Amino acid sequence: MRTQVAIVGSGPSGLLLGQLLAGIGVETIILERSSREHVVGRVRAGVLEQGTVELLEEAGVAARLHAEGLPHSGISLAFDGRLHRIDLAALTGGKHVTVYGQTEVTHDLMDKREAAGLVTVYEAANVALHDFDGAAPFVTYDDKDGVSHRIDCDFIAGCDGYHGVSRKSVPERALKTFERQYPFGWLGVLAEVPPADHELVYANHERGFALCSMRSTHRSRYYVQCPQDDRVEAWSDDRFWDELRRRLPERTAASVTTGPSFEKSIAPLRSFVAEPMRFGRLFLVGDAAHIVPPTGAKGLNLAASDVRYLFAGLREFYVGKSQAGIEAYSQKALARVWKAVRFSWWMTTMLHRFPDTGDFGQRIQEAELDYLVHSQAASTALAENYVGLPY
Amino acid sequence: MRTQVAIVGSGPSGLLLGQLLAGIGVETIILERSSREHVVGRVRAGVLEQGTVELLEEAGVAARLHAEGLPHSGISLAFDGRLHRIDLAALTGGKHVTVYGQTEVTHDLMDKREAAGLVTVYEAANVALHDFDGAAPFVTYDDKDGVSHRIDCDFIAGCDGYHGVSRKSVPERALKTFERQYPFGWLGVLAEVPPADHELVYANHERGFALCSMRSTHRSRYYVQCPQDDRVEAWSDDRFWDELRRRLPERTAASVTTGPSFEKSIAPLRSFVAEPMRFGRLFLVGDAAHIVPPTGAKGLNLAASDVRYLFAGLREFYVGKSQAGIEAYSQKALARVWKAVRFSWWMTTMLHRFPDTGDFGQRIQEAELDYLVHSQAASTALAENYVGLPY
Repeated sequence: MRTQVAIVGSGPSGLLLGQLLAGIGVETIILERSSREHVVGRVRAGVLEQGTVELLEEAGVAARLHAEGLPHSGISLAFDGRLHRIDLAALTGGKHVTVYGQTEVTHDLMDKREAAGLVTVYEAANVALHDFDGAAPFVTYDDKDGVSHRIDCDFIAGCDGYHGVSRKSVPERALKTFERQYPFGWLGVLAEVPPADHELVYANHERGFALCSMRSTHRSRYYVQCPQDDRVEAWSDDRFWDELRRRLPERTAASVTTGPSFEKSIAPLRSFVAEPMRFGRLFLVGDAAHIVPPTGAKGLNLAASDVRYLFAGLREFYVGKSQAGIEAYSQKALARVWKAVRFSWWMTTMLHRFPDTGDFGQRIQEAELDYLVHSQAASTALAENYVGLPY
Repeated sequence: MRTQVAIVGSGPSGLLLGQLLAGIGVETIILERSSREHVVGRVRAGVLEQGTVELLEEAGVAARLHAEGLPHSGISLAFDGRLHRIDLAALTGGKHVTVYGQTEVTHDLMDKREAAGLVTVYEAANVALHDFDGAAPFVTYDDKDGVSHRIDCDFIAGCDGYHGVSRKSVPERALKTFERQYPFGWLGVLAEVPPADHELVYANHERGFALCSMRSTHRSRYYVQCPQDDRVEAWSDDRFWDELRRRLPERTAASVTTGPSFEKSIAPLRSFVAEPMRFGRLFLVGDAAHIVPPTGAKGLNLAASDVRYLFAGLREFYVGKSQAGIEAYSQKALARVWKAVRFSWWMTTMLHRFPDTGDFGQRIQEAELDYLVHSQAASTALAENYVGLPY
């Protein structure tokens, strides 16, 4: 087989890149290790920056997002027993974020890809990347019947996440990695109940962080900070709801509608960046190159921002006949990556209880939050990052 | 003896409070443990917020400050080999800071106090505070000839610093304290050489923090971060200048004029807050209640801000015949204290090398600095804190 861009991974970044390239007549094949059902079954984040929404519009997959997504023009910070709203729209000249599950984004992109008759190979095993440092890269894999295949291509886009084969195909000496493990996890619950607040609530509390989020007006997503080595089995629904409410201001706690959880899981928090993001004709995109803790809701948006830069570079190559965009990809993408990594680290640091936080740390967090909600400049700095910095 | 307000400590906060009270006809006696020579000989910070300058004007001691002080409308942040200027004035509607040594402020205040014939008792030993939780407090001390004295008063102002007797006179159970020790010190040098830059330069470097400051156009004050347990004897002038230049961008390093140091010392860095700041008729002021690391240049300014609140409260008491200002002192002062404690902690955290900084932490610091100098909102947040938040 031959294609122009071989895409490894059918998560939202791979699918979005494929759709954008299809729009300018560039052929792609997507190779996905898992089954289609597994990919769409993954529960993920759900806050989209305006720039991410615009890119989905450009790819022609924003209809359901606009019909069902919830535009949010603010978030709230809860601390010291009170709720403080950050008016994102007022502080950023009218920008907002959209609550729409990553699962739904993936769904929409898959439907679009299938309707267009573009090729995705699911359950592709033993995917291997070859010769990407030369002019003629190719990808090999075994299909679900065990038959081996080879795809020759111009470029390989590694959109296969942190654990994927793409980054691991790069010689270790060519990569510089940066990492921070946070000494806690997030216990997350999905429940078919109306959310406590119509916008997201980020809570700092002496007992630990809590987040009130949602997927829709009738489906809530809640999180509480928990020990790193905690087990889901230790958390009955009752214990979860009690702990959540304890960490929220009284009035917000009273607005929490409880109900049976239909998903409950513990996720670790980590910051990770691999540099560079291009190796000859291989590009790393999204989680393959960087991980952020979910506190700033940046993971999916950062993947979309990588896709934006990579698509611009490939368009310059195929349409403009210039290598410049491709050569600039890593530098451009990383500049924005580090900004989001910093923002996510900062939100995480300000809102969580750390082992060494102590009385001083707790008061510093509260002083920072207090300054933040009362200073126009500091609120604007939070808001401009939350809605997404310029590209 | 009897006076209206007994002031313990003849540093800038005690002297300034005495001068302001003299302006409304309220009598004070200042008790100072050390000699006059010792007090004016102490080398201290030298960056005054506009509000501090205004308070010195109100006290009638700003003439020399205006003649000799250096108004600065910006500072520079150095990182990743480059210098980035923060235009404090442009970002804060024209505000600036004034470089004028704390030693000079103390000098001016002492001269003014002596010219007005107001009493300062130097070398007062065994100072003890009595009955400040009742209506008739008094202070006892032994003069330098060993003769014991008693001063009856309406109020006691504890302006005697972290190690002074005032805070120690408060029962431990009545105090809540917050503390953070930073795992490094500042090695500071004074030299009779023109400064490297006409404004202050705060440098983040993998080898550690450095600061280019000054006392005048011909006297420079430089600092480099050093290990906590380092010894001055280990630092020859040559070693100091070499290390300083290594941590600065090339062009700034080339502008450093070296010369023999005439003061060289290592200071620890610490954040400390004691709450509350009033105990009946005793008020804690400045370093007696709180310590900040010098990174944000807030120590003296915070003392002046305490004095402003306390003076307002005492004026309300003596002129307005109301207790309200006195009763609000601790709450009002602490609100601003915590903001400055947060700012100083943040500047310290962003600019220094910590034992656990590592590659990730270094890049996060650089990402934060990069965001800071390129975002109008983030630059404004730094600037509004640096010139001094509103009272």
